[in-house]
Amino acid sequence: MSVTIRKIATDLNLAVSTVSKALRDSHEISAETKKRVFAYAEQMDYIPNLYASSLKRKKTGNIAVVLPEVADSFFSLAINGIESVAQEKGYHVMIYLTHENPDKEESILRDFRSGRVDGVLISVSGGAGADSHIHDLCARRIPMVFFDRACESIGAAKVLTDDFEGGYKATTHLIEKGCRRISFLALSETLAIISHRQHGYEEALRHDGIPVDKNLIVNCTNDERESYAIIKKIFLDENRPDGVVGSVEKLATLTYSVCRDLNLHVPRDVKVIGFSSLSIAALLNPSLTTITQPAFEMGRAAATLLFSSLERNNQDAQCRTIVMPSVLIERDSTR
Amino acid sequence: MSVTIRKIATDLNLAVSTVSKALRDSHEISAETKKRVFAYAEQMDYIPNLYASSLKRKKTGNIAVVLPEVADSFFSLAINGIESVAQEKGYHVMIYLTHENPDKEESILRDFRSGRVDGVLISVSGGAGADSHIHDLCARRIPMVFFDRACESIGAAKVLTDDFEGGYKATTHLIEKGCRRISFLALSETLAIISHRQHGYEEALRHDGIPVDKNLIVNCTNDERESYAIIKKIFLDENRPDGVVGSVEKLATLTYSVCRDLNLHVPRDVKVIGFSSLSIAALLNPSLTTITQPAFEMGRAAATLLFSSLERNNQDAQCRTIVMPSVLIERDSTR
Repeated sequence: MSVTIRKIATDLNLAVSTVSKALRDSHEISAETKKRVFAYAEQMDYIPNLYASSLKRKKTGNIAVVLPEVADSFFSLAINGIESVAQEKGYHVMIYLTHENPDKEESILRDFRSGRVDGVLISVSGGAGADSHIHDLCARRIPMVFFDRACESIGAAKVLTDDFEGGYKATTHLIEKGCRRISFLALSETLAIISHRQHGYEEALRHDGIPVDKNLIVNCTNDERESYAIIKKIFLDENRPDGVVGSVEKLATLTYSVCRDLNLHVPRDVKVIGFSSLSIAALLNPSLTTITQPAFEMGRAAATLLFSSLERNNQDAQCRTIVMPSVLIERDSTR
Repeated sequence: MSVTIRKIATDLNLAVSTVSKALRDSHEISAETKKRVFAYAEQMDYIPNLYASSLKRKKTGNIAVVLPEVADSFFSLAINGIESVAQEKGYHVMIYLTHENPDKEESILRDFRSGRVDGVLISVSGGAGADSHIHDLCARRIPMVFFDRACESIGAAKVLTDDFEGGYKATTHLIEKGCRRISFLALSETLAIISHRQHGYEEALRHDGIPVDKNLIVNCTNDERESYAIIKKIFLDENRPDGVVGSVEKLATLTYSVCRDLNLHVPRDVKVIGFSSLSIAALLNPSLTTITQPAFEMGRAAATLLFSSLERNNQDAQCRTIVMPSVLIERDSTR
């Protein structure tokens, strides 16, 4: 049978309320009594009932990280950055995956309204859908920080990269390497980071006098097989692209698979650049040119902002936007 | 201000206990009253206090997945398998990372003792340390299923692959390809899956009359830079290996990096095989020969066992061990 506060009180000949207050380190209880209670509780292997004590402290010691997936190198590195800060602060990190499904995202966030976590770090899903569930959580004053994928209409803290600039740099790089028919592989029409990257792509084309061809802007999906078929189709066209910007990692590696299966040589027949933080990008055949975000540092910055809100109810931290630089790493896929 | 049960009771002219029971769908309350209470609660946007209601129902609607990291393809695929089952059952999955740190693992599991989750899926950390925290959780009758990395001394449900066979097959494959100085890159001496893979490696060597050379069995760490240096050292030896078995994915890709930096050609100078479920293994330079576990299916099987325990208190499911087959996929790194 598990030890209760009542049992401790009886054994120590104290009131239940005294033991309860002592265990919460209340100033109403003398140091000597607290010492007695702590020592006995430890001896008896007493475990506080989390839910009961949460009712009083309103603290769970948990933060939630809500994100689309973990198979993408950006997210797995960002998680490590978040955890490095949470560890210092003595918090547990609970990771929830939305799989780009706004219904799932909504269901997860609804759960948080009843006090399951002290704060939320979120990279929003790319599915079409209202973002009222995010507004709702925000309105309930649960501290929240967006990282990478933000909900632009919400005045919460954000840690981002300049996605327009990333799209612009990637496209300009391909133009400099001689590409003229550059395809932009998009993931979702509703995701701000993708549309900013696309605007950068379009602006770079215009800047070099290359007309924007809507047939070269292709919407892929979260289903790998579907996306493979979509990408294959553009390469079977007689006017196939000579350059590809993969707006997320998976779309760049899928382009590699398509090219291999169609016997198209990268970079001779088509040059490829992808947004990716993949540590083994250099080991791919050919090594992949990337726009690389500082994923670990972005996770650290987002977590630092969140704890700043939690610890000091810091209003300034609650609406800050930090924009971190991403870099173009040139490798063989665009040579 | 948020709506409370008391407010609903006052407004509907009902006792607080009646509203509380109605919201828990108790058979003591008439269907008509329940309908009135539900309709009004919905209208008022009533959110049950999770912790208070958990005290009564002893159900959180959450399962925990505890694992070392998400950057490894096995784990990211296994998570997807677990989530596919949890989604069907209407449970949220909370992912906790141990980063191979037994202290962190212990701290996470200790948290579960107070009722944070309904069940736990765990792939144990590889750090040296007592596994008493796992025994402890098990003794508290919180349903638990091991996947991939089990604690062998605990009679809980397990979903595994035959790691001895995997190590044996990998090594035999290298021997057939002409390797005679085969190095085994281990991750941790305390992790059963690694020692089973190593025993398979040693047995395969013995079977072919090749003496086991302890200098070729190398313990790497969780630090990427450290492991890189350790692997580099064995390749700078004049008696460098002509074949490598990477007992986890990261060690195979690190071997690629070392070989590239030392201008050693894979597979001509050294052949490499790794335990990995990496979908882009085929896109590496050269494409990587792998021992591939059915990661998604293992996640599904583990989650199915857990829900079987949760739903039916199924004693049989609580101590079943399922062993699933892994396959050798030959690619260019061993040709």
